Amino acid sequence: MKIMHLGDLHIGKKINGHLLLDDQKFMIDQYIKIIDEKQFDVVIIAGDVYDRSIPSIEAIQLFEYFVKAVNVERNIPLFVVTGNHDGASRMMFGHQFFKDHAFYLNASIQQAFQPVALDDVHFYLVPYIDTDVAKYYFKDETLKTHGQVYQRIIEAISDVLDDTKQNVLVSHLFITGSETTDSEKELSIGTIDNVDVNMFKPFDLVLLGHLHHPFALTHDRVFYSGSMLKFSFSEVNQPKGYRYIEYINNEWKVQFVPIAPKTDMEHIVSDFDAIITKKVTPKNPNSYIKFELSGLHLTTDPMRRLKEMYPNTLELKPIVEAIDEVKAVVDVMNKTDFEIIASFYESFHQNPLSTHQVETIQRILKEVQHETD
Amino acid sequence: MKIMHLGDLHIGKKINGHLLLDDQKFMIDQYIKIIDEKQFDVVIIAGDVYDRSIPSIEAIQLFEYFVKAVNVERNIPLFVVTGNHDGASRMMFGHQFFKDHAFYLNASIQQAFQPVALDDVHFYLVPYIDTDVAKYYFKDETLKTHGQVYQRIIEAISDVLDDTKQNVLVSHLFITGSETTDSEKELSIGTIDNVDVNMFKPFDLVLLGHLHHPFALTHDRVFYSGSMLKFSFSEVNQPKGYRYIEYINNEWKVQFVPIAPKTDMEHIVSDFDAIITKKVTPKNPNSYIKFELSGLHLTTDPMRRLKEMYPNTLELKPIVEAIDEVKAVVDVMNKTDFEIIASFYESFHQNPLSTHQVETIQRILKEVQHETD
Repeated sequence: MKIMHLGDLHIGKKINGHLLLDDQKFMIDQYIKIIDEKQFDVVIIAGDVYDRSIPSIEAIQLFEYFVKAVNVERNIPLFVVTGNHDGASRMMFGHQFFKDHAFYLNASIQQAFQPVALDDVHFYLVPYIDTDVAKYYFKDETLKTHGQVYQRIIEAISDVLDDTKQNVLVSHLFITGSETTDSEKELSIGTIDNVDVNMFKPFDLVLLGHLHHPFALTHDRVFYSGSMLKFSFSEVNQPKGYRYIEYINNEWKVQFVPIAPKTDMEHIVSDFDAIITKKVTPKNPNSYIKFELSGLHLTTDPMRRLKEMYPNTLELKPIVEAIDEVKAVVDVMNKTDFEIIASFYESFHQNPLSTHQVETIQRILKEVQHETD
Repeated sequence: MKIMHLGDLHIGKKINGHLLLDDQKFMIDQYIKIIDEKQFDVVIIAGDVYDRSIPSIEAIQLFEYFVKAVNVERNIPLFVVTGNHDGASRMMFGHQFFKDHAFYLNASIQQAFQPVALDDVHFYLVPYIDTDVAKYYFKDETLKTHGQVYQRIIEAISDVLDDTKQNVLVSHLFITGSETTDSEKELSIGTIDNVDVNMFKPFDLVLLGHLHHPFALTHDRVFYSGSMLKFSFSEVNQPKGYRYIEYINNEWKVQFVPIAPKTDMEHIVSDFDAIITKKVTPKNPNSYIKFELSGLHLTTDPMRRLKEMYPNTLELKPIVEAIDEVKAVVDVMNKTDFEIIASFYESFHQNPLSTHQVETIQRILKEVQHETD
């Protein structure tokens, strides 16, 4: 059995207002190509199909394009759990029709306990479960953290689990010890909400979504697929692709396979002048770029000038020189008003005040002095 | 063959902020009961399943409850076209899975030309089509009105239509000569957008949605189902129910069957005092009521008092006594300031001013006179 494990597609995602739909269409076409090459027996999406609970029509249509290609046209079973970004109740519409065609879209806690069997493998498809939903379902007010919720769900699964089968858990959650990035929505704030990897003992394999780094966790049976694309500049060094999983001779073999995106992402820390003069350049001029630059005070509209050179510039962050700040604070104590203004100007413009500027400032200071006397 | 023809469910509809979901659940349960009694072979919904393009989760769940009951549990074919209130592109997700189970959800112009066959009957399920969509589809800029659009669609259907079958058109549109009410969204504004009934000649039967009155049109082959409920006070005298259609001995028999709602709707035109003293009462104290009342100036919070007696009061409209207005305007010309105030007070309170009021007004008028001199 060959499994393609995906997760965190976040279809419809925007970065700083830039819609990634074309990049996502490109990746989905790569997936389809790879599915044809590798002849997968099942495709799994471990949550966060969409980026928000009411996705755009274009996002819905792109997901349907993938579903149609995989499941309708190629007849490949497709297993999907909803993630914390997905609007589970909206996505659920029609799920009972989908499963007639081996498209299992699990979006509710009720669906967690009935495995989907494929040959000798039982797949438990557990969507992201909100603690309040779990409290209500189990009639148990003590369920306060996601750790407790998934502990309880796994206990309930363990009660019905068939040990003569291979049991695979598919879910969407944050495992203890994993790294996080900026584009992963917090599952909940103010509670200890991560999950201990040890609770997955009943399963032969655990395929997860939520964390965007495919190596956020290192474990012999528990795997993240990683996200479809670099969805924030904190993911700039993360590989993106899919997990290739094979069950052969009673053994699970899992590897991560990278896919090159349509547009890569770069984070460039430099000086504005070095960029403008092309002393420093991105690896690819079409990359999505976050510039973090010093020397920005030399121009009035640096973003415009950067976009002229690199149209996919998405973010510009100034480098504030911390040492200057400290110096300014210290100096203030022993300086006259004029000296403070002059040194502030100098530290920012790296040039002294002109004669005209000196005269103007002194005139204004005199007027202020007159008013406050 | 026995057909239940429904339309304009408008699931999730609110009237003056009051959500009708409980009333709609009640009606859907009536439909299901009737389906069991009459043993329908197919259930048709001729558009406007929902009240808005992004329906609430509760509205989606109620529609799914109906779909599940009819199609999943009872295995009855279900044919649905989307209406102008529905978000067709969102609703389309999964439609290719639905039809495997004889649930045809047609939401795009592409789906209009391929009939669904049931025994010897071919059903053409044509959703509400926007003129811009039709322009693009037919590559024809001359399509400006809905009349032209449906003319063109019917021509295209006529080209493929099999005359040896019975051909039924299901659609959602406004036929010329029909009555309109407040709760029907205008299909488009500023264009001649209604459709001539004569263009339906190629069909043996036409089952429509959009107009909420089941008898908005009188024709031997073209029928509206009418809406699920009275959705505005302009529909207060309209019967609501479903169309019972039978094809027997090569003949179509069509009748309208009313269903009593959970909560009826009444429009009461009277005097506030007559309501409060129960000289006038609604037919049912639980009805949704629009009061249109005179004598409202006698109380400060008439809506609160009406709701105490009739909690489902949804609207209160004052009856403005036109004759008094005219008299007041005329009289102003020949009266002193004091006389104007006194007669204004009297006409509203139907009592003369008290001595204290007279003194106060005269004192204030004197002060004003003093200021302006």
